[in-house]
Amino acid sequence: MTFTAVKPIDGSAFGDAISEDSEAHVSALIDKAAAVAHQLRALSPSNHGKLLRDIAAAIEAERDSLIVSACAETALPEARIGGEITRTTVQFIRFAELIESGNHLKVVIDKADPNYSPAPRPDLRKLNQPLGVVAIFAASNFPLAFSVAGGDAASALAGGNAVVAKAHPSHPNTCAIVAKAVKKALAENGISTDAFSIVQGTNPQITHWLATHPAVQAIGFTGSEQVGRILVKLGAERSNPIPVFAEMGSLNPLFITEGAIKDRSETLAKGLVDSALLGSGQFCTKPGLVFLPGNSEFVATMKSYLATLSVAPLLSKSIAERYSKAIAELSTISGVEVLAGNSNDSGFGVTPTFFITTWEIAQANPHLLEEHFGPTTVLITTEPSRYRDIALALPGQLTTTIQGVDGDEVDSLLEILAEKSGRVIWNGFPTGVAVTAAMNHGGPWPSSSTHTTSVGIDAVYRFMRPVSYQGIPQSLLPKPLQDANPWKVPQQIN
Amino acid sequence: MTFTAVKPIDGSAFGDAISEDSEAHVSALIDKAAAVAHQLRALSPSNHGKLLRDIAAAIEAERDSLIVSACAETALPEARIGGEITRTTVQFIRFAELIESGNHLKVVIDKADPNYSPAPRPDLRKLNQPLGVVAIFAASNFPLAFSVAGGDAASALAGGNAVVAKAHPSHPNTCAIVAKAVKKALAENGISTDAFSIVQGTNPQITHWLATHPAVQAIGFTGSEQVGRILVKLGAERSNPIPVFAEMGSLNPLFITEGAIKDRSETLAKGLVDSALLGSGQFCTKPGLVFLPGNSEFVATMKSYLATLSVAPLLSKSIAERYSKAIAELSTISGVEVLAGNSNDSGFGVTPTFFITTWEIAQANPHLLEEHFGPTTVLITTEPSRYRDIALALPGQLTTTIQGVDGDEVDSLLEILAEKSGRVIWNGFPTGVAVTAAMNHGGPWPSSSTHTTSVGIDAVYRFMRPVSYQGIPQSLLPKPLQDANPWKVPQQIN
Repeated sequence: MTFTAVKPIDGSAFGDAISEDSEAHVSALIDKAAAVAHQLRALSPSNHGKLLRDIAAAIEAERDSLIVSACAETALPEARIGGEITRTTVQFIRFAELIESGNHLKVVIDKADPNYSPAPRPDLRKLNQPLGVVAIFAASNFPLAFSVAGGDAASALAGGNAVVAKAHPSHPNTCAIVAKAVKKALAENGISTDAFSIVQGTNPQITHWLATHPAVQAIGFTGSEQVGRILVKLGAERSNPIPVFAEMGSLNPLFITEGAIKDRSETLAKGLVDSALLGSGQFCTKPGLVFLPGNSEFVATMKSYLATLSVAPLLSKSIAERYSKAIAELSTISGVEVLAGNSNDSGFGVTPTFFITTWEIAQANPHLLEEHFGPTTVLITTEPSRYRDIALALPGQLTTTIQGVDGDEVDSLLEILAEKSGRVIWNGFPTGVAVTAAMNHGGPWPSSSTHTTSVGIDAVYRFMRPVSYQGIPQSLLPKPLQDANPWKVPQQIN
Repeated sequence: MTFTAVKPIDGSAFGDAISEDSEAHVSALIDKAAAVAHQLRALSPSNHGKLLRDIAAAIEAERDSLIVSACAETALPEARIGGEITRTTVQFIRFAELIESGNHLKVVIDKADPNYSPAPRPDLRKLNQPLGVVAIFAASNFPLAFSVAGGDAASALAGGNAVVAKAHPSHPNTCAIVAKAVKKALAENGISTDAFSIVQGTNPQITHWLATHPAVQAIGFTGSEQVGRILVKLGAERSNPIPVFAEMGSLNPLFITEGAIKDRSETLAKGLVDSALLGSGQFCTKPGLVFLPGNSEFVATMKSYLATLSVAPLLSKSIAERYSKAIAELSTISGVEVLAGNSNDSGFGVTPTFFITTWEIAQANPHLLEEHFGPTTVLITTEPSRYRDIALALPGQLTTTIQGVDGDEVDSLLEILAEKSGRVIWNGFPTGVAVTAAMNHGGPWPSSSTHTTSVGIDAVYRFMRPVSYQGIPQSLLPKPLQDANPWKVPQQIN
C-alpha cells in the first residue's frame, strides 16, 4: 500500500509514492526508540544543548528543499514557509538555551534535618527526568513549526525523550526531509538515529497503534477536537493510562467596543479580515467569532474589503470539502447575512465567506458557533452591554481578544475572558504566537486537553516528571543532584 | 437515607446518623462553590496566606475533638492521629509560606521587542491562575492528612480554588469536624463558606456526580487503582474532559543486597517488619514486595519477630474482609511459605501475614504481585544478580528502595528503579513521606495517573493554569503583572 502527496494548487501528485507503514513497523520503531531513550537521558546539559542546536542547523541546511516541498504540498506562500523554517529552528535554539542553563531539571535539595516538623527529614533531592518515548502527531496547518520536528517534538526531545512522530499525510515529503535532518544531527552527536522516527500513512489506524503502544509514555497532538477527543480516550483506557497533550484550536472570540470602532473603524475592519484570512484561515488562532455593536459603516468596510480578497487553496482536499460544505450549510440559515470574497477555482481553492447574524440566531444554530477551518468568520452584532454574559456562555478558548479604547469599562469582561482562555489580547489579533517565555498556547477544553502550553519553553515540562532521591550516596546520585555538581546546574539547596 | 460511622475496634456505631447526600444536593454545593470561587482568586498573597494559616489554626483548635473522633473511627493510635493533625496543619502552613512568597504565580514578563526573532514580540505577561472548583476524594487511610482538608484540598485551596470534597464514609464525623473548622476560617477571612464544602454518603454514585459536574475543573483523588481508573475514565469522557490527579498506591518494591544482610541482619529484618506493619499495613508506601537473597537466618529473624506482633484493627469492615480473603487465597498457593503474626480478634482485627516465595511462582500467580491493603508483604528470594531484570519487569511505583552497603554494584539497578518510580530510597524504608520541597509523591501508572506530586508544595501546580496577557494596559492587568507590582511578587522580567 502506498500513497502520494497532492498539490493543493491543482490537485496533481507531488513526489514519489510513499509506503503506508504497517502496525508491525510502527510497533518496531517504538520499541527501537525505547531501547535507545537512555542515550538522550545520559547527555550532559551542554551536549544536550549542542544536539538541539545541531538539529536546528540540520533543518536550516535543508531550507531550499523544504521550501520546494512544503510550498508544493501546502500551497502556502514561500515567505510563510521560510518564516516557519526559521521559527522551527528558533524553537530548538530556545530549548537549547534552556537545557544548557540546567533550569529545566528544577533541582531541589533538602539536606537532612532531624528537627524538621512534623517529622525528621531525610536527605531528599529532586529533579525532572525524561519520560521515555513520546508519540507526536503532526498538524496539517503548520508543515514545519507544528509538524514532526515542530514545537511538540522539540519540547519532547528537549526533555530528553525519544520521539516517534506521525507525519501528516498532507505534507509527507516535507516530514521526510525534516526527519532525515534530525537523524543526521543525532548521528553526528553519537546518539542512535532510532531516537527519532516518523511513521507515514493515510490509515487512521496508525493513530491507534501509536497511542496504544505500551512503551509510549505521553502524546503530543495538534489537530481537531474530534481526533483530540479520541486520543484522550485512548490515553485514558490503556492498561497504563498516559497523558495526552492535545491542542485542538478554538474560535478565539474577539469583542469590539463602540469606542474602538469610533477610533479606528477602517484599520480595525481591515485588520480583522486580514487576520481571519491569514494562512487561508487555517490557523488555530484565527478570530472565528467576532462580537460587535451593530455599526453598518464598519460592516460595510469589512464587506467591501473582503470582496477584493481571495486566498490560496486549502491544505487538502478533505479540508476544502469540509469547508465548502460548512459554508453552504451556514449560508442557508435564516437571518444570516453572507459576506463573500473572491473565489479561487484552482485545485483546493475556496471562497472566503463571512457571516453576520445575531446572538439569538447563533445560539439557535450551533453550527455557527463551531470552528470551521478555512477563511470564514462569524460576526455577531449585539449590544456591548451583553458581552459579559455572552463571554460567560462560551466554552474554553486558546485566545480571547478585546478591541477597545482607554476608558472602556471592560474590567469584568476581561476577567471572564481570562477564565475562559489561555491568552487574553488587547487591541491586537490572535494570529501570531510568539515563541517566548511569557507565551501560553493552551486553554480550557476544547482548546486544550490539559493546563499546559504547547508553545514556548515551558512546553518541555509536559514531557518530564519529578523523581526524588532519598538518602542516596553521592556516588550513586545523578550528576545534577551531587554536591560536587559536575554539570554546574542550578541547585536550590534548603 | 442515613448511615452511621462504625468503630473498627468492635464494630459498634459511632456518632449520630448522617444523611446520604442526594445528587441535587451535591450539584447545588458545586454550583455554590463555582459562584464564589472568584473570592479566593481575588485574595492578595498575604491575605491568601493568612486564610491558609487560619485554616491550620482552626483545625488545630479542634485537636481534642478530632482525636476522639478519628481514633474511634479508624482505630489508629492517638499518637498517630495527633501526628496527622500536626501534619495537616503544617501542610497548610507550608502552602501559606509559598503563597505569601508569590512564587506560585510564576510571573514572567516579556516586554515588547520589535527585533525579536523569528517575529517582533508584543508585550506578554504570564501568571498562574486558579482553575475554579476542584473535587477532592478523601482517602480512608489518612483521616486527616489525606482527607477532606488533607494535601489535595490544601493544595487546591492554596491554588485559589473552591473545593467540594467527598468525605470518606469510614471517618465521616472526623471529616465534618474538619469541614466546620475550614468554613470557620473562611468566614473569619470574609470568604463565603460555600468555597469549601464536603459531601457525605456511602452511595458510590456520589463519585460520579462529583466527577461529571460541568463546573468541576479538576479532580484530586487518593485511593485504589480500581476507583482511580474509573475517575480517569470519567474525566476523559466528559463533554469537557478534565485532569484527574489520582494517587493509587503501589507495591513499593525493596531490594536487599547480600552486603546489607551481612552488615545489619537483625535491624534490617525488624525494620522491614515494622515498616510493613505501620498503620496496620495501610500505607500507600508500605513495602509490599521485598527481594532478598535466600538467607535462612535473616528470614528466621523476620519470622520470629513477626510472630510476636499484632496490629490494630483495619479501617473498615470491607478492608478487613478484602484483606482476609486475599490472605486466604495467597496462603493456598503451592510453593509459598506463610509467616504469621498474632491475631487480633476484636472488631475488624486481622492477622499480620507475610509470604515467602520465588520470582517464578510470583509471576505465575499474579495475586502475589498485587497491592493488598493491610499487614502483609511478599518476600521473594532470588539471586541478587537478577534484580535488574526483575526491576525492568515491574509496573510503575510510588517508591523503590535498595538496602545495600558501600561498594554494592547497584548503579544500573538504581537507574531502572528511578525510571519505574517517583522516589528512590537508599537504606531506608518507604513509609514516611516528608512534606518538603524536594519530596515527590507520585510515580508512573498505576501508582499515579499523572506526572505530578500529591505531597509537598509543588502539589499546588496541579490546580493552577498559566494565562498570558498580551498588550493589556496597566490598569487592566492583574496586580501581579503590573509594572508597579503592588503585591510585590517575584517578577521574571525579560
